[in-house]
Amino acid sequence: MVNEKKMVGERAAEFVSDGMVVGLGTGSTAYYFVMALAKRISEEGLKISGVPTSLETARLAEKNGIKMYSVDEVDGVDLTIDGADEFDPQLNGIKGGGGALLIEKIIASNSKEVIWIADHSKEVSQLGSFPLPVEVIREGSKHLLAYFTDKGYQPTLRVNDEGEPYLTDNEHYIIDLHLEGITDAQALSEELIHLVGVVEHGLFLDIADKVILAKDGNCQIIEK
Amino acid sequence: MVNEKKMVGERAAEFVSDGMVVGLGTGSTAYYFVMALAKRISEEGLKISGVPTSLETARLAEKNGIKMYSVDEVDGVDLTIDGADEFDPQLNGIKGGGGALLIEKIIASNSKEVIWIADHSKEVSQLGSFPLPVEVIREGSKHLLAYFTDKGYQPTLRVNDEGEPYLTDNEHYIIDLHLEGITDAQALSEELIHLVGVVEHGLFLDIADKVILAKDGNCQIIEK
Repeated sequence: MVNEKKMVGERAAEFVSDGMVVGLGTGSTAYYFVMALAKRISEEGLKISGVPTSLETARLAEKNGIKMYSVDEVDGVDLTIDGADEFDPQLNGIKGGGGALLIEKIIASNSKEVIWIADHSKEVSQLGSFPLPVEVIREGSKHLLAYFTDKGYQPTLRVNDEGEPYLTDNEHYIIDLHLEGITDAQALSEELIHLVGVVEHGLFLDIADKVILAKDGNCQIIEK
Repeated sequence: MVNEKKMVGERAAEFVSDGMVVGLGTGSTAYYFVMALAKRISEEGLKISGVPTSLETARLAEKNGIKMYSVDEVDGVDLTIDGADEFDPQLNGIKGGGGALLIEKIIASNSKEVIWIADHSKEVSQLGSFPLPVEVIREGSKHLLAYFTDKGYQPTLRVNDEGEPYLTDNEHYIIDLHLEGITDAQALSEELIHLVGVVEHGLFLDIADKVILAKDGNCQIIEK
């Protein structure tokens, strides 16, 4: 059986050139990209500066010999490669299943180019089957949950394996909205960012420039 | 010489009735309100639940015997009394000089009524002489500073007495924008909340219902 995540992760590493500042995504697909990039660095001697989008990715990259910098130690990021939980034909997506959406979005917004890598299950005609993560300040989160419930958004506070509220790298909570389908992602994004206590949300609109998608045993490159 | 802050703080305490859940503001003017409220509780036996807007206010209220709850332990706040760094004739304001704007805004947005208390220096015809605080995620703050500089907003990263970046109660940074005058506060608010990495900002628009202002030795009550 083809490992689609590995396939697109390795294909993505080919988009990296010598001297680049590269944003390193988080999650099971980005894992293979980081591994493939580390291999190119070691075999071809590429000089790469990595900017990790999470503590998890920072640990992985460090272990594999990728030189690392925070986003504030670089003037900008040339190319960010990251996974996505869902993406639609306009290359809008949902991210944050792994909990790293905030830093992922900060690094993407400071990147010249953003490429998402995805196995075939991530391609959808309409966003919203995947629960939409909303990163919120802990204080007041109960009232945001109540608001989302009133709106019919079927919110759940994300918990860890111990049943305690999950904390992001920045010590915020995540509320997952079970929307089933999002008919107007732009309007929903506007609603969410206007709520006091919402730090960021997992709708990544007009951010990705390309998607490398595993489909029928091949890598398909979808450009905007 | 009249202590205007004390005068409006004490006047504000008269707006509290028995049984209320009261949001307790932060800063030098709110200090006097908390002290006057504590006095009413002790002298009149009022049953009050306090919801503090900062660790600083929580410590003050606790020391003075006010029963305290987090905003998530109450169903809502009946009345919040807080200071403001500036307010205009529409009762829009700038807050956050004391660094507590995020929780202040969360508690205000969960309050049935919000009253600001102010000495006469806080009344302005146009907002913006007071630096506008913007609470931001640490990661990427250097790039937000560069963006604000490009826009001519004259940003400074707030530092503590040791010259280290100031951390809010939620461990974010604060960037103060030295705008001198804000001609369109609504448009600026929209611009700021759309920036990735901005958690909240100090423009409090359409939030205060009343201002208790010290003027010419009296308390003037301005309603919206």
